[in-house]
Amino acid sequence: MTRSLRDDLAARYPVWRFRDGNVPERADDLAVVEEPLEIRVAGRAVGITMRTPGHDAELALGFLVGEGIITRRADVEHVRPCDRAGGEVIDVIVSPGVAVDFARLTRHVFAPSSCGVCGSGSIDALRKQFPKVGDGPRAEPSVVYSLMDGLRRAQPTFDLTGGLHAAGLFDQHGTLLAAREDVGRHNAVDKVVGHAFLGSLLPLSRHVLVVSGRASFEIVQKALAAGIPIVAAVSAPSSLAIDLADESGLTLIGFLRDGRFNVYTHAKRILE
Amino acid sequence: MTRSLRDDLAARYPVWRFRDGNVPERADDLAVVEEPLEIRVAGRAVGITMRTPGHDAELALGFLVGEGIITRRADVEHVRPCDRAGGEVIDVIVSPGVAVDFARLTRHVFAPSSCGVCGSGSIDALRKQFPKVGDGPRAEPSVVYSLMDGLRRAQPTFDLTGGLHAAGLFDQHGTLLAAREDVGRHNAVDKVVGHAFLGSLLPLSRHVLVVSGRASFEIVQKALAAGIPIVAAVSAPSSLAIDLADESGLTLIGFLRDGRFNVYTHAKRILE
Repeated sequence: MTRSLRDDLAARYPVWRFRDGNVPERADDLAVVEEPLEIRVAGRAVGITMRTPGHDAELALGFLVGEGIITRRADVEHVRPCDRAGGEVIDVIVSPGVAVDFARLTRHVFAPSSCGVCGSGSIDALRKQFPKVGDGPRAEPSVVYSLMDGLRRAQPTFDLTGGLHAAGLFDQHGTLLAAREDVGRHNAVDKVVGHAFLGSLLPLSRHVLVVSGRASFEIVQKALAAGIPIVAAVSAPSSLAIDLADESGLTLIGFLRDGRFNVYTHAKRILE
Repeated sequence: MTRSLRDDLAARYPVWRFRDGNVPERADDLAVVEEPLEIRVAGRAVGITMRTPGHDAELALGFLVGEGIITRRADVEHVRPCDRAGGEVIDVIVSPGVAVDFARLTRHVFAPSSCGVCGSGSIDALRKQFPKVGDGPRAEPSVVYSLMDGLRRAQPTFDLTGGLHAAGLFDQHGTLLAAREDVGRHNAVDKVVGHAFLGSLLPLSRHVLVVSGRASFEIVQKALAAGIPIVAAVSAPSSLAIDLADESGLTLIGFLRDGRFNVYTHAKRILE
C-alpha cells in the first residue's frame, strides 16, 4: 500500500472499478489503515486491538479505564510506545501503589469492535496460518452485481431495526446457499460458515462470501479459514484486509452497492 | 423490553421521538436483540460473544472453524445448547481423536465485531460493576440536534475512505472537547476517554459521548466506566445497550441524524 497525505489514517490502493458493466476502469482508492496494537501494563501484554494508528497512548488509557483498571490521572506514571517487529506495542506504567489484577484483566478483556483480536499476548499469534486460496473459481461481473439484491431479499429484519448485519454465502453463479443476520457482522459470518460446516461443504472453494458493512482483517481471515476465495463487502475494506487478501490469493471486493463495486485484489476471478 | 413478532431478532421499546423541535412524541421502536453466548468445547469455556439469538450451533461451529480448531463435519460429534442463569451456553463436543489445544484457543481467541466481550470464561464476568450515573446534567434538544454536525466537522477522513468510525466528547452545552477517528468504533471511544483521562477530567459527569454507527452494550459500558451520563449514536442501539442504560441511569439516544433523534432511556435529561 501507499500511505496518503493523511498518513496514519488512510492508504492508497489500486483498484478495478466496475460501474454497471463488464469493463472496469483502473483507479486509486483510499482505504482506512488497520494495524495491530499490543497494549501492555507494566511490561505485560493484556490485549491486542486492531486500530487505526494515532493517539495510541489515549487508546491504551481509555481501554484500561473501560476495564476498570485505572480511574484517574494519578494512577498512571507514564505511557511508553515501542516499535517491535510485526506490529506496535504500547506500555502503560502504573504509579507505585496502584494494584493491577492481571488475572482479572486477561480473563475479562474487551475487544474493540471491527477488531476483533484480543486476549492474545502476542501480535505474532495474530495471523493464523491458513492455506492460500487456489486458482478457481471465476465469477462473472453480472453475478457480482446481483449479490447484494440476493442478500437483501434474505435479510428482512434490517429495515425494521437498522441494527443488524448480514452475511450471505453464494456459489460462483450467484445462487444463495445461506444468509444470516446478527448484531455482529462477524457472528453473521460465523453462522453461514457454521451452516456450511454442518452440510459438510468445507472447504468452500467455489463460493462467495458477502457481508454488509465493512471488510476488516478478521472477515478476510474467517473467509480463509473456510477456504472461501471471493469476499464482497457492501462498504469499505481496511488496509489490512486488502493486504491479507493480496498475500493469500483471495479476491476482495468492496463498495458493492448501487450497481457498482471495486475489486481490490486478485481481480482475475472477475475480469472477463 | 417486549419481544416483537420476529421474536429472536428484534425487541420493542418505547421511545421519545424528536423531530426538528423541542416537543417529542411518544412512539415504539424496534431494536435488534443483543445477548451473550458462551461457547464451550467439551464443557470448557473458550469465549463469549455478544450475538443476536438464533442459529447458535452454527455460530459456535463457524467460530471454531475461524479459530482453526475444526475443519470438517467429522471433527464434531454433537452440539449441545444449554440455558443457564444470566445467559446462554453452547457446548461443542468434538469427536474422539480430535485434539483441541485449549491453551492456544484461549490465548488467541477472536472477538466478534460489535461485541466485544471475549477471552472471558464466564458470562457472569461480563457486566463490570461501574457506579450508576448521578442525576445531572441536562442537555437542551437544540444541543442534541447540533452534536452530529460538531462531530462531522471534526472527522475529515470519513468522506475519503468510508471506512472510519468516529467518537466525540462534548460538554452539555454542545462544545466539542475531543474527536477521534478509528477503524473500530470502540477504539475511537477509548481514544476520547483516554484524552479526557490525560486531562484529569474523569469522571465525565457533565459530558455527552457521540458515536458514529450503532450503540452496543460495550459502548454503554465504556461510557459508564468513564462516568458519562449521555450517549448519542448516529444509528441504532441494541437491546442490551438499552437495557444497561436503563438500569444504570444513563440517557441513551439513537438515530441522531437528519434533524431527528430518539431517546430510549432517562429522557428527563433532554425533555424540557
